[in-house]
Amino acid sequence: MVGYLEAHIEQGPILEQRGRALGLVESIAGARRLQVTITGRAAHAGTPYAMRRDALAGASEAIVAVEALSPGLGLIATVGRVGALPGAVNVVPGAATFSLDVRAVSDDARDDGLDVVLAEVGKLCERRGLSMSVEETHSAETVRCDETMKRALSRAVTATGDDDPLSLFSPAGHDAMAIAALTRVGMLFVRCAGGVSHHPDESVLEEDVERAIEAMCAAVLCLADGYAGEEGNWT
Amino acid sequence: MVGYLEAHIEQGPILEQRGRALGLVESIAGARRLQVTITGRAAHAGTPYAMRRDALAGASEAIVAVEALSPGLGLIATVGRVGALPGAVNVVPGAATFSLDVRAVSDDARDDGLDVVLAEVGKLCERRGLSMSVEETHSAETVRCDETMKRALSRAVTATGDDDPLSLFSPAGHDAMAIAALTRVGMLFVRCAGGVSHHPDESVLEEDVERAIEAMCAAVLCLADGYAGEEGNWT
Repeated sequence: MVGYLEAHIEQGPILEQRGRALGLVESIAGARRLQVTITGRAAHAGTPYAMRRDALAGASEAIVAVEALSPGLGLIATVGRVGALPGAVNVVPGAATFSLDVRAVSDDARDDGLDVVLAEVGKLCERRGLSMSVEETHSAETVRCDETMKRALSRAVTATGDDDPLSLFSPAGHDAMAIAALTRVGMLFVRCAGGVSHHPDESVLEEDVERAIEAMCAAVLCLADGYAGEEGNWT
Repeated sequence: MVGYLEAHIEQGPILEQRGRALGLVESIAGARRLQVTITGRAAHAGTPYAMRRDALAGASEAIVAVEALSPGLGLIATVGRVGALPGAVNVVPGAATFSLDVRAVSDDARDDGLDVVLAEVGKLCERRGLSMSVEETHSAETVRCDETMKRALSRAVTATGDDDPLSLFSPAGHDAMAIAALTRVGMLFVRCAGGVSHHPDESVLEEDVERAIEAMCAAVLCLADGYAGEEGNWT
């Protein structure tokens, strides 16, 4: 196997802000995903504040803390799911759960940042008389794109008229992350409107797609030209 | 119909703290319940913070604000349900909903306090580029216990050995609220352990229940003695 090349919209604003159609991917973030459960004590809605151990109030403070702390720690963190138990309008929740997805430029930065966030959530739970448990549901390592693949893509992007292609980090996961277990990978980013993706407003220019196809073909030809055989060496 | 008497555990800590077995109910809080929906924009979990309009982060800040503001406004507010849409671990929520139950000693205090809380939630949504909508799902008026019923219960509690029965406000709703549409109501509170209710730890002393039954019987006899006929007058 020679290698794997992938093109994808950036799902971020940088290419658009810098007026570039295409960019090179340096590395793809490996996400860790956790299920956080906060436990207090269920009580009827007439219970005075001093007697409450409200798990959802604690979880809400935790979600706000995740958002407040993450940028300073170099994390991109997302809480996408939340729930309260027993989940009745007139009952103070005895338990609350939320999902937590964290990403960073490197696995070390991600893991260190996550430790700080969880320690803060632990502290606020303690202040509230709540307990916290954390279960890891997913963990992927950050994938660095291969130097030879990057060089071929860089030459190809230059050939489309961009003298000094931008290198970007991908906070979003991509198919290349899975393929990296089998072979070297390289990725090309294509400018998208407003960085929006996974949404009906997702949009890309036809002329940018045309340039991306051109660049992908050029990169494949460049790799084929220089490839020296099964050992996977390039001249 | 002569009237309606109800006995219930206090579901609060006051009788226990004051060393009293029984108490008289002054009024029963009428709750208002709302469904609050906060709308932002869904985005994949790699989206930079500056580009997010995270509805769940906004809802979480709102839930924390409800808890922080309510005591100062004389409100007892509870958020018992919460949800995020689309509800995927790797998607920034585009919408979030939560329930809000508010109670206070009077309907005016409750309505004024709720206005302040909703205005604050509106402001924080605006700061975050989120929109908010509110739907009222339930509204009940505060019920004041009838003076004659209270007097009969007061005499009955005094007869059990308590010279100066405590009067209490009930933040919890009770059957008497519905019956109040038909006839005069009175309520007796019985001490419970730690103010806990609607929970496996709910507990009451057998001797307190015995005194409550005695007092209820005495109140019925007291009312029967003084009752002058169909017009519902007491001598």
